[in-house]
Amino acid sequence: MEIREFQDMMKHLYLKRDRERGVGGTFSWLMDEVAELGEELKGNDREATEKEFADVIAWLASLANIMGIDLEKAALNKYPHKCPKCQSSPCACTF
Amino acid sequence: MEIREFQDMMKHLYLKRDRERGVGGTFSWLMDEVAELGEELKGNDREATEKEFADVIAWLASLANIMGIDLEKAALNKYPHKCPKCQSSPCACTF
Repeated sequence: MEIREFQDMMKHLYLKRDRERGVGGTFSWLMDEVAELGEELKGNDREATEKEFADVIAWLASLANIMGIDLEKAALNKYPHKCPKCQSSPCACTF
Repeated sequence: MEIREFQDMMKHLYLKRDRERGVGGTFSWLMDEVAELGEELKGNDREATEKEFADVIAWLASLANIMGIDLEKAALNKYPHKCPKCQSSPCACTF
């Protein structure tokens, strides 16, 4: 599934609720989901870890929806098949 | 671009470096990027905000690569075109 398509699905499912919650509240949820992912990474429950990855990309898409940002376009603008710092593929940064 | 394709691009660009950094270090970078996104959301620099969205999905993909997790599959397993809680589309959760 395309990044844009996933973002559109989140829009269809949650935009009304996301808008009501607003940018601050939705960012706070994203932070919580990232923290939950961090906790799962310490354990061995693969299925639970996968669900947390899903939640992080889902809340990121929700946040982008409220902001009116195209996540796919933003991702490809910064990462156009090469490293934005060294301009190489694969990355050849020396730091 | 498909979520999987974006994850594969990140793999091509950064997997060696990501593996050397490891799960803990890469998660820490992801946290930093989310915090930077939060700072940009307070301002009015749209281009900078878009770049931070790009960085968050990029580091999430890097982390998934180290873990051997298919981000697209994980996302669609949890969000199969309906809300995982109420099973409706759009979401009809009452909480």
